[in-house]
Amino acid sequence: MAIQRYVRFETKTGPAMGLFKKDLVYRIKGDLFGKHTVAEKGIALSKLKLLEPIAANKVFAVGQNYLSHLGDRPVPSKPEMFYKPRTSLIPSGAPIVIPTEAEDVHSEGELVLIIGKRIKRADKAAAAKAIWGVTCGNDVSDRNWQRGPGKDVQWWRAKGCDTFGPLGPIAVRGLDHSHLLLTTRINGEIVQQQRTSDLIFDTATVVSFISQFVTLEPGDLIYTGTPGNTRKMGPGDVVEVEIEGIGTLRNPVVAE
Amino acid sequence: MAIQRYVRFETKTGPAMGLFKKDLVYRIKGDLFGKHTVAEKGIALSKLKLLEPIAANKVFAVGQNYLSHLGDRPVPSKPEMFYKPRTSLIPSGAPIVIPTEAEDVHSEGELVLIIGKRIKRADKAAAAKAIWGVTCGNDVSDRNWQRGPGKDVQWWRAKGCDTFGPLGPIAVRGLDHSHLLLTTRINGEIVQQQRTSDLIFDTATVVSFISQFVTLEPGDLIYTGTPGNTRKMGPGDVVEVEIEGIGTLRNPVVAE
Repeated sequence: MAIQRYVRFETKTGPAMGLFKKDLVYRIKGDLFGKHTVAEKGIALSKLKLLEPIAANKVFAVGQNYLSHLGDRPVPSKPEMFYKPRTSLIPSGAPIVIPTEAEDVHSEGELVLIIGKRIKRADKAAAAKAIWGVTCGNDVSDRNWQRGPGKDVQWWRAKGCDTFGPLGPIAVRGLDHSHLLLTTRINGEIVQQQRTSDLIFDTATVVSFISQFVTLEPGDLIYTGTPGNTRKMGPGDVVEVEIEGIGTLRNPVVAE
Repeated sequence: MAIQRYVRFETKTGPAMGLFKKDLVYRIKGDLFGKHTVAEKGIALSKLKLLEPIAANKVFAVGQNYLSHLGDRPVPSKPEMFYKPRTSLIPSGAPIVIPTEAEDVHSEGELVLIIGKRIKRADKAAAAKAIWGVTCGNDVSDRNWQRGPGKDVQWWRAKGCDTFGPLGPIAVRGLDHSHLLLTTRINGEIVQQQRTSDLIFDTATVVSFISQFVTLEPGDLIYTGTPGNTRKMGPGDVVEVEIEGIGTLRNPVVAE
């Protein structure tokens, strides 16, 4: 499959998807994951207000999926999944808002999978085929609510506050995502950098494992885990998640 | 507000909502939570295949919200939330399927809130107004994945497997839900019974608290917590969650 790039953008009648080629966006009508048509005439990308590149259905994330991120924690024997709410998603350019009550908010640069098929109890081969494309994501996390003195029973707000799920800017199909360099920068300084080939559980394994228990559907997203050590962000910072062959997700950080 | 009852059902063109009065269902067209019309002619309820009573958006649940359910665990200082995936929802009558790998699956009868407004940082009065209606729910849980030897880092499958979210059969508006008797039966035997007035965090407090961090939207559901001690279910069992003034959610249990 040739590499194809997709964006999602605002229109007067609501969000629309488009195929992105040579600075022009060709609007898609119909089901992105099924029957659809592509407009013959393109619109200049610069004229569009981009949204998160997919209208998300369920949002999954994997914890502890790079050895370099584990610290003192044991190596997991299976993908350790959790959910993020759809309302946490924001596009590239939109601000990450630090809630007043949050104390230790970190960025986590990640490769994000976009599911294109409905699957249950899929083996790894079928799981790999259900991955429609990939994009960049930032699994923003408050360490206090996650595992600090203010630890909640579950990570619902540690990982789920509004704006804690930057995603995009572009969804890419047909790209081999097994060995891509993933780089996270705060104010231009590299804070995380590793290849997706270092994932403890590769993407087909993660998708297959989830599908043993929870049906995956078109539009579901999976944040695949973050490498290395992360750092606290604060108002005024700018965070970038760059994945080679995909692009750069860039979000400013603001106080509430 | 007079008490109104709603159902959701299959049609040739997809799921539809209906107002339920005296054995007849009057189809609703438009936005259930906004502008809509109600058909003048009713259809006999017995002719319809009922679905979960709401097309769910996000699904929240509260852990540890009745003193009688805490056991050795400390009394929480705030609502302890988690997410269930939409794919876990099933209507009354559909089977709860025990996954082959699950070891200790319990039922949890609960009052479920249906959110009808988009709210953020809502106080308790605004939160109470955002509760559109209520229904019965069963927060099916595998205790091994939740807190047993096979404990996962998060409750994604303990609470999230397909069929682990029975809901319905009827959504009710205009009912004071602050003092309703909640009864869970397995094969007719009462295993849980308590009033919603015993919730540690009442429904307005829970909704307000969530909205401090995560935007609530029309169609979001909140399972409000389960009382007392629960019991392991197995294939062949039938579980009922009855809430006075709402109805009885009844699901058989089967092996995968």
